[in-house]
Amino acid sequence: MKDPTFVERSKEMVAAMTREEKISQMLYSAPAIERLGIPAYNWWNEALHGVARSGQATVFPQAIAMAASFDDALLQKIADAIADEARAKYNEYKKQGKTDIYQGLTFWSPNINLFRDPRWGRGHETYGEDRYLTARMGTAFVKGLQGDHPRYRKCDATLKHFAVHSGPESLRHSFDAKVSDHALDEYYLWAFRYCIEHAQPAAVMSAYNRVNGEPASASPTLLQKILREKLGFDGYVVSDCGAITDIYLHHKFVATKPEAAALAVKAGCDLNCGGAYAALGEACERGLLSEDDLTKAVERLMYARLSLGMFDDDCPYDAISYDCVESPEHRALSRQMAEESIVLLENDGILPLSREMRVAIVGPNGFDDSVYLANYNGTPSEIVRFFDGIRAYTKAVRMAHGCDGYHPLYEAVAAANASDVVVMLMGLNPSMEGEEGDAYNTDASGDRLTLDLPKEQTRLLEAIAATKKPIVFVNISGSAVNLGAAKAHASAVLQCFYPGAEGGLALARILYGDVCPSGRLPVTFYRSVEDLPPFDDYSMENRTYRHFHKEVQYPFGYGKSYADIAETWIAPLVCEVENRSHFAAPYTVLCYDEEGALCDFCRLTLSAGEKKRISFVKYR
Amino acid sequence: MKDPTFVERSKEMVAAMTREEKISQMLYSAPAIERLGIPAYNWWNEALHGVARSGQATVFPQAIAMAASFDDALLQKIADAIADEARAKYNEYKKQGKTDIYQGLTFWSPNINLFRDPRWGRGHETYGEDRYLTARMGTAFVKGLQGDHPRYRKCDATLKHFAVHSGPESLRHSFDAKVSDHALDEYYLWAFRYCIEHAQPAAVMSAYNRVNGEPASASPTLLQKILREKLGFDGYVVSDCGAITDIYLHHKFVATKPEAAALAVKAGCDLNCGGAYAALGEACERGLLSEDDLTKAVERLMYARLSLGMFDDDCPYDAISYDCVESPEHRALSRQMAEESIVLLENDGILPLSREMRVAIVGPNGFDDSVYLANYNGTPSEIVRFFDGIRAYTKAVRMAHGCDGYHPLYEAVAAANASDVVVMLMGLNPSMEGEEGDAYNTDASGDRLTLDLPKEQTRLLEAIAATKKPIVFVNISGSAVNLGAAKAHASAVLQCFYPGAEGGLALARILYGDVCPSGRLPVTFYRSVEDLPPFDDYSMENRTYRHFHKEVQYPFGYGKSYADIAETWIAPLVCEVENRSHFAAPYTVLCYDEEGALCDFCRLTLSAGEKKRISFVKYR
Repeated sequence: MKDPTFVERSKEMVAAMTREEKISQMLYSAPAIERLGIPAYNWWNEALHGVARSGQATVFPQAIAMAASFDDALLQKIADAIADEARAKYNEYKKQGKTDIYQGLTFWSPNINLFRDPRWGRGHETYGEDRYLTARMGTAFVKGLQGDHPRYRKCDATLKHFAVHSGPESLRHSFDAKVSDHALDEYYLWAFRYCIEHAQPAAVMSAYNRVNGEPASASPTLLQKILREKLGFDGYVVSDCGAITDIYLHHKFVATKPEAAALAVKAGCDLNCGGAYAALGEACERGLLSEDDLTKAVERLMYARLSLGMFDDDCPYDAISYDCVESPEHRALSRQMAEESIVLLENDGILPLSREMRVAIVGPNGFDDSVYLANYNGTPSEIVRFFDGIRAYTKAVRMAHGCDGYHPLYEAVAAANASDVVVMLMGLNPSMEGEEGDAYNTDASGDRLTLDLPKEQTRLLEAIAATKKPIVFVNISGSAVNLGAAKAHASAVLQCFYPGAEGGLALARILYGDVCPSGRLPVTFYRSVEDLPPFDDYSMENRTYRHFHKEVQYPFGYGKSYADIAETWIAPLVCEVENRSHFAAPYTVLCYDEEGALCDFCRLTLSAGEKKRISFVKYR
Repeated sequence: MKDPTFVERSKEMVAAMTREEKISQMLYSAPAIERLGIPAYNWWNEALHGVARSGQATVFPQAIAMAASFDDALLQKIADAIADEARAKYNEYKKQGKTDIYQGLTFWSPNINLFRDPRWGRGHETYGEDRYLTARMGTAFVKGLQGDHPRYRKCDATLKHFAVHSGPESLRHSFDAKVSDHALDEYYLWAFRYCIEHAQPAAVMSAYNRVNGEPASASPTLLQKILREKLGFDGYVVSDCGAITDIYLHHKFVATKPEAAALAVKAGCDLNCGGAYAALGEACERGLLSEDDLTKAVERLMYARLSLGMFDDDCPYDAISYDCVESPEHRALSRQMAEESIVLLENDGILPLSREMRVAIVGPNGFDDSVYLANYNGTPSEIVRFFDGIRAYTKAVRMAHGCDGYHPLYEAVAAANASDVVVMLMGLNPSMEGEEGDAYNTDASGDRLTLDLPKEQTRLLEAIAATKKPIVFVNISGSAVNLGAAKAHASAVLQCFYPGAEGGLALARILYGDVCPSGRLPVTFYRSVEDLPPFDDYSMENRTYRHFHKEVQYPFGYGKSYADIAETWIAPLVCEVENRSHFAAPYTVLCYDEEGALCDFCRLTLSAGEKKRISFVKYR
């Protein structure tokens, strides 16, 4: 429900603009219009798991990790904390008269695309492969970021990428995703619909790719018929960066820039990340669109800036001070989320570890700060590393990389020989799985070609296994990895998605039993890409826990506990859960509908011996 | 004085070798000779400031930093600790049957070349510009590394690079250093003579360059007349890596590889880092050298391996356990050295800092782990970063990079505005000053073209100064930097040479007054390269505190204290030093001879009000 006074004022502001002025406001780096008292504004900012690319900020666990917590209440608190830090920075930049990129209040997060194939390099930016989990987490993020003030929005959240966008990265600027109406409704648009209904996001970002022939950023079907008419979205649409240029340059859907720009605006893409909208003047000259089309778009944009309080002096968020940036409270939230996101996959009883054991920490991810930060990240003033965390429990620690350099394998074996247990920090890093063009692994533009561990890590695992020392294998990654060898050799296996700046202590608290593991996999862990359909096949058949028919390594929702907890389903939507252990433990019950689709979940903490009855509700 | 039984056994071993077997032992990666019970051995290892390139190890401050401490007694303790970690690793590798590079006991450290020009990228590997300081520190390092067992050497130390080697890096494989006999005796060879006389180093490494026309690695003048006959060196000589190849390929001193190899062996270069000595067989065929030349060289090499206990089972060092690797005791030594190495250049009274102040830590070197490690370094299990150290004194800390990324300058200003004092962590890093070919700054092959701060750091300094917040400027570098702007804007200026893995706490303890600064500059801080002779001019005229006649920014030996300490010279070699403060303080008295050359020094700690008389002795 829009604020009528802001609607009114936005119409007045735009009515006073010339055509060129309107066009200037539709570019993400919008110049000032002095004569109308409109300051310059750069719309581009990022906050996927903390205020990103703007210096010091609390770095929370990556999105995929937060999904593994199944704790949308905590995610909403975190998004609220992110919004505080964002406002604090905005207020400081305003004092300095700065209106650059990464200084504004309009954030191009969250990414609620479905992680439908483990090869997708950007999958760790999402909330996993399930529509409902994605919808719940996305809603919590939007609510937290936008706040609950009756008049002003704290920050703008942007649902992306609309729609049907999940790789391959190498084809994203020219790819045409073919999907059925059923797949659109039931999968690719489902979370967008849910979030729009439950959280009223300020913005939606249109995707690079085509969908059934139409470029997503200029698609009347997607942006008009579905987004605005069917889903009832009433905010503004921003194009992914360069997506309008792709329309004529890579999709070759039209021949020229003015045509592409006109097509996008008429379809309902109001704001251009990129420069193509500079051609809108020529497009008007050539009669490709009317000034009314521009007016409608700019009114939506000015409405957003008004809602953020940029033109008023009574916005309470102007008072948020810089002190909140990376405050102890925010770092505590980050650690709690990291603790809830770690998934225990195997444990023969070696966990929790005894403090008496001498520990060898082995593996490349013990030396790689990028695994705490993932991508679209801020800069923490301090990273609590895995080594730091374990050192909080024992001083008898050795550390060896084991993979790069000259002969680290033997140094790692030496460390293992001098210890009682080996904690292996293995897996991937954000340069092995990421976004196209970000100087990532170039062979696949950021996507992965295999689910296997890097070969040198397999060699290291075998060398350590040969020492006969017990192994705790921690796979640190943003997506599914083939953990067959780990399971074969290790006494315990944990999945630690990129855990944020507090990740080291979070893992240690789980390893030593101060925290009981409660995370669950938000994606299916397959055995091999051989089992999967082609990456660029957008049918859901043979994908995700819903439609994959072969044997998996670990299913969606899998996750063990140190506690003995029993579920008894006494009716389709009613579960009795009992903690049979002598200590309290967090636990998440997942509720599936008759079709086997996740339809509700509930995270709770059960005290020792406690039994609880939970009734679930299925969203239509 | 050589051990007669080892001499005897080495002669016997070599007498039993065929010519090809002798040649095989003169390559740094020496294969096994099964039939003689001689195992394979790789001679290449590094320990410039801790066991390097072999995984976990205590990382001590870089050599130039240790020189700034003027504490050769502590350096000897550190070298002894390094030798323990080296033996512990060697013992482990031996168990695994490994004889690879960086697993042996023969270390190609220390680097006692004179840091005669601040542009030299490798200058931070040295003990500075003064012959006497270099000689004292080099001697302490050799003694510590080699140990004091009557029969066995703990490790081999190697004095490098012999001789007259100090850039330009870009020319090192073909350059001909022209020097007078006087410059050789009084400067370039002086420290070698002192170390050989006082510490009997096991080895000397010959340099890449030519000296007065002769390639250093095949120079009868340097390796025979001077090193063995005049300086009385009785160990083995190893070539710098690839230096023999340079003789024909780059110096074009001879036409072919066999000629170069023969020339080097006959001159007295016993061991080849590189592959050129593989051509020695052909050289013998062609009569370029006799088998006796080979015999002499291999006898020296086998003597070294015997002295290291490699062929005996009663070597006490075989019992050194892995537990000493990065032990708390070794890390404590590293921190003490870091504390003694930090030089206070300016202080208007803001130091020591009050714990009540809110601190903004600003600058790229707060985010760059490479500044703790410098080069030729090991891998610490944990780096105590500057931020960690300051956090030990106050939790009211902000941190901002200020230089790279999109608009970090403004974020840094925001951090400053939110604080009471700004600690700027600026300067260089090992990728701005380093060794040729190590993927360093390619414009000058690792050397520097200017003494100025990087431009973006100057901009950052000016932006922070504009906030009017007091600035503590910490220049972190391995060589002299023009600190004019820092002096102009800052309330305090410190020089922190690459401080090792404990550096962050060491700096914090000085900033907050738990440690009183006592470091002194081991190099002259010039105002500009404009004031210097050409880099490739090896005359000492207009270089170093001895012969530079213009105004300098900070002289060699400069360094302030928090304490008020007075020196009174009552005779040329007798000084009375008094601590007029109400607290104890470390202090180093430098004694200069009639020619203005440093001839002795004494580091001591003076209790509050204490007065001491020190008599110095001048080395002939």
